Amino acid sequence: MKKRIAILGSTGSVGSQTLDVIRQFPEDFEVVGLSAGYNVDELAKQIAEFEPRYFSCLDDSITEIGDSQWISMLDLATHSDVEFVMHATAGVEGLPCAIAALSAGKIVGLSNKESIVMAGAHLKRVADENGGTILPIDSEPNALWQCVIGEKSSPKRYIITASGGAFRDRTPQELANVTPEEALKHPTWSMGKKITIDSATLMNKAFEVIETASLFDATLDEIDVVIHRQSIVHSLVEMEDGSIKAQLSLPDMRHPIQFALFYPERRPNDTLPKFDLLDAYELTFEAMDPSKYPCFDLAMKYARIGGTYNAVLAGADEAAVDLFLDRKIKFTEIANEIQTTIDLHEAKTEFTVEDAIAAAQWAYETTTTRHSTV
Amino acid sequence: MKKRIAILGSTGSVGSQTLDVIRQFPEDFEVVGLSAGYNVDELAKQIAEFEPRYFSCLDDSITEIGDSQWISMLDLATHSDVEFVMHATAGVEGLPCAIAALSAGKIVGLSNKESIVMAGAHLKRVADENGGTILPIDSEPNALWQCVIGEKSSPKRYIITASGGAFRDRTPQELANVTPEEALKHPTWSMGKKITIDSATLMNKAFEVIETASLFDATLDEIDVVIHRQSIVHSLVEMEDGSIKAQLSLPDMRHPIQFALFYPERRPNDTLPKFDLLDAYELTFEAMDPSKYPCFDLAMKYARIGGTYNAVLAGADEAAVDLFLDRKIKFTEIANEIQTTIDLHEAKTEFTVEDAIAAAQWAYETTTTRHSTV
Repeated sequence: MKKRIAILGSTGSVGSQTLDVIRQFPEDFEVVGLSAGYNVDELAKQIAEFEPRYFSCLDDSITEIGDSQWISMLDLATHSDVEFVMHATAGVEGLPCAIAALSAGKIVGLSNKESIVMAGAHLKRVADENGGTILPIDSEPNALWQCVIGEKSSPKRYIITASGGAFRDRTPQELANVTPEEALKHPTWSMGKKITIDSATLMNKAFEVIETASLFDATLDEIDVVIHRQSIVHSLVEMEDGSIKAQLSLPDMRHPIQFALFYPERRPNDTLPKFDLLDAYELTFEAMDPSKYPCFDLAMKYARIGGTYNAVLAGADEAAVDLFLDRKIKFTEIANEIQTTIDLHEAKTEFTVEDAIAAAQWAYETTTTRHSTV
Repeated sequence: MKKRIAILGSTGSVGSQTLDVIRQFPEDFEVVGLSAGYNVDELAKQIAEFEPRYFSCLDDSITEIGDSQWISMLDLATHSDVEFVMHATAGVEGLPCAIAALSAGKIVGLSNKESIVMAGAHLKRVADENGGTILPIDSEPNALWQCVIGEKSSPKRYIITASGGAFRDRTPQELANVTPEEALKHPTWSMGKKITIDSATLMNKAFEVIETASLFDATLDEIDVVIHRQSIVHSLVEMEDGSIKAQLSLPDMRHPIQFALFYPERRPNDTLPKFDLLDAYELTFEAMDPSKYPCFDLAMKYARIGGTYNAVLAGADEAAVDLFLDRKIKFTEIANEIQTTIDLHEAKTEFTVEDAIAAAQWAYETTTTRHSTV
């Protein structure tokens, strides 16, 4: 029996790497549908190779590519022929599809971390009520998941590693004038633009902390972040008896993707880069310098309050990253932009999924509008 | 319900550390019996504190200590009131008790690695046939066990770490004149004499490779050894998909002991030393230099042939270590002594437990006799 898969964000980094894994296992997976944004050329190539029955793209003038029929992303995420939804779109727009897929009882490989940041408790509830399953794709929560398999009790501490991003060796003063091109050069991981900037500010790490708290029913205080430059140890758990378990591999997203695709099995894949411990030679762990990462502290502060603040963090951050990439603000202004928007927000403690979506959209627009030229 | 425990080798390093753990959990364990050698003073203190119904010691003129009655070690290991046998005697004499306890369907915390080196297949068969269970106490196989919990498929590679022992930074030339006192200073672990010398020669690591092959149904070729000076990462497994899992803690035997005692649960224990990843700062991994560790290569060569060679390795090594501690041979002569005895052995491919015991005894005596002064 082939596992029937839909990939949301198929032309993005995680989406295309999901297809890289699937390509190695033609007997194990059937690609039912592929959903992309405006990169129709790449999408057409993927359709020619994987022959999905359905595709989705943001150019709705296209109704067919080869034998493949257009479908909305939401309809694809909930389609009865689909068992496993790889949710690899970027940004706050990913939440409705995550909710829809889990409502339909799908197994959701969740790479879109914004959705769990914005409404983690809702995602878990919807999954529980409808037989859906959330499998984390992000390397850090995926590593935590690999470490806790088979353990009868929960860890007492989750230790998430951070490479420190593109600017880990710059002083706070040097950061003022960094360009988007510099910020997009991640030292260890090859990823999409949004997440690479979020990695440089460590906002991505704050989101992973929030994601981990949701996925593993942990409190924010049970989660630590350490700087680990080599990006080999993807995360660690400390069990109640003090024993620590860690997951290691080369920094290649196909590792966590494949783990989720085959779970609970594991399968050999010779196309994955092989890690030799002797090549790593030394693995280092350093405390994070909070003065270098104001976005991280800001996010943790408001995540502790919770409610719709999480959605505002996600929406304002997305806008601030876009403004930086568009050269409208400096790298060091990203945190201030988010803070300014947060200060304008009237937070709700109890909130619906719709509230979260509205709060994120409001935050995105509020942040962007401050810099729009009429 | 308290877990009813017997400790064989209670005054040794692992035995007394087992009691250190049990002391923290008076509601969870009942010490049914304690077995020691000639250290009756220490045994009497343990009996006064833990009040076991039975004790065993090699001075058979003592029939009672307090309210505790003498029993033979074999009778204690198989007693119907005992559920869990912590088998922490040192050396080749441990095999009969291991077999007896497993024959009686006990859970055996196996710290005596010589017994599994000598007759691993027999131990597993006896356990399978009689509902016995082998739980590895040695920190490396214990770490491997912690890593594979919950995994549906076997690892493709087992990576055992080695501190490199007391002489890891000496040249082969410098080793000729090291004293027993120097060899007994292990850089990271506090252990008994036999295992500390075995750690300096890396014979201990060879035994762990053989033990791992038996416990995890692996081939010797699936097991690697890397030098890891910090003794923080106790071992790693590489799964079929290339993901690596590692177990870490400070080098303190109470960690693996407690894990085995409570398995499958984990319990907090504030008396265990707490490991902070940031204190470790860097974890290093280096290839082993075979020229420094001739015992390791020798052991691997004969373990590949198998049969009664394993028992001869264990017996000849025990004799050679005794000879070195008695200053009758040099540190660098340990490997030669073992080789000389092996060359005299007529190996059996098919062998019984009795054959293994006889082979180890023969090897011990043959090696010792060469140096006895009439």
